[in-house]
Amino acid sequence: MKKKKVSNAAIRRIPRYYRHLEALERKGIARISSAKLAMRMGLTSSQIRHDLASFGEFGQMGYGYSVSELMKEVAGILGMDNCYTAVLVGGGCLGQTLLANFPFARYGIHLSAVYDIAPGMMGKTPFGVAVRYVSDLEADLAIKPADIGILTAPVGSARELAAILENSGVKGIWNFTNDELKLKDPDIVVEDVHLFDSLFSLCCAINERDARKVSNY
Amino acid sequence: MKKKKVSNAAIRRIPRYYRHLEALERKGIARISSAKLAMRMGLTSSQIRHDLASFGEFGQMGYGYSVSELMKEVAGILGMDNCYTAVLVGGGCLGQTLLANFPFARYGIHLSAVYDIAPGMMGKTPFGVAVRYVSDLEADLAIKPADIGILTAPVGSARELAAILENSGVKGIWNFTNDELKLKDPDIVVEDVHLFDSLFSLCCAINERDARKVSNY
Repeated sequence: MKKKKVSNAAIRRIPRYYRHLEALERKGIARISSAKLAMRMGLTSSQIRHDLASFGEFGQMGYGYSVSELMKEVAGILGMDNCYTAVLVGGGCLGQTLLANFPFARYGIHLSAVYDIAPGMMGKTPFGVAVRYVSDLEADLAIKPADIGILTAPVGSARELAAILENSGVKGIWNFTNDELKLKDPDIVVEDVHLFDSLFSLCCAINERDARKVSNY
Repeated sequence: MKKKKVSNAAIRRIPRYYRHLEALERKGIARISSAKLAMRMGLTSSQIRHDLASFGEFGQMGYGYSVSELMKEVAGILGMDNCYTAVLVGGGCLGQTLLANFPFARYGIHLSAVYDIAPGMMGKTPFGVAVRYVSDLEADLAIKPADIGILTAPVGSARELAAILENSGVKGIWNFTNDELKLKDPDIVVEDVHLFDSLFSLCCAINERDARKVSNY
């Protein structure tokens, strides 16, 4: 079967399907109609059917979708079956929060090491992950490459560390540094988590909302 | 002057202008042409001119834009002049990371308190912010309302806490709980930070990229 191209918009939408299916599974729900899934997700039935059709053929008229089968298919599209390896670069507050809160292994991602500069962290294995000096990053990746670099280092070192990750051949960078990385290879996928942009999109929307309310008087 | 409506797309774009202008100011750059700002931000000159025109009239033909004046204007659109107040609900790892890393005060946001359940946190003032029991949240907000609720509590309590925030009259919720909040008032702005979606958009894009490479052989 020819693989269908997944659009950028769908790439942003698909993880949400997985979250909703996971929640349904936790509740013990085995089948769901596209209408019910749509209502749950705040989408229309036709959007859902269109998206689900692009994942493969699962629904049977009148029977709805099997939650577990659909989850398996969506997991495949999300790359959960690919056993991606990752390194966490920056073991400070933010890095430790990710270690503590994000179940990487549950979703098929193997975090091979945490890199930091603090001598006090060395020899420790927070959440089972070895801590290494960031000065070893380049040499370590030369021996054991990683698919994903997670950048939680301070903004000042972001570009230098991104260059090391790029040269080592990572496929993607999950970037929390609030810096905009300049990579040479356009094929490396960069996903930015810009907390500043997120909070000020919120504030900007509040500001707009309040301005509208005032102008309605 | 009639206030122009700021589109949703612009609301997502404007914080990025502020970040770039701030970086220029740090470097001591006082003026910049739209062409140079565009190159820096990876946009076209005409996109920049269109966006900047909607912020007000700042550029003078041939002189470029004053970085400080433009920053002031953008700050206004982002609501930084409004002295928004916020409460942080959830003083765990993630909440503490935000406290440690996000300069709320520098951007005009007054964080009035952190709410948690851990007795060990009470009486402390991490980064100068008082810690209160989450069971006091409702009563505290009745006396001293907040504009923004920052939800970093565990997913299980997300909806209950969101309802308390909603009933207290917050204008917006910055939601880190990985739950999708169901609010009654559609006017409350919700900004979700879904780390799961972010990481798996990245993985999905890598998966797509690799599938394309294979199919090109």
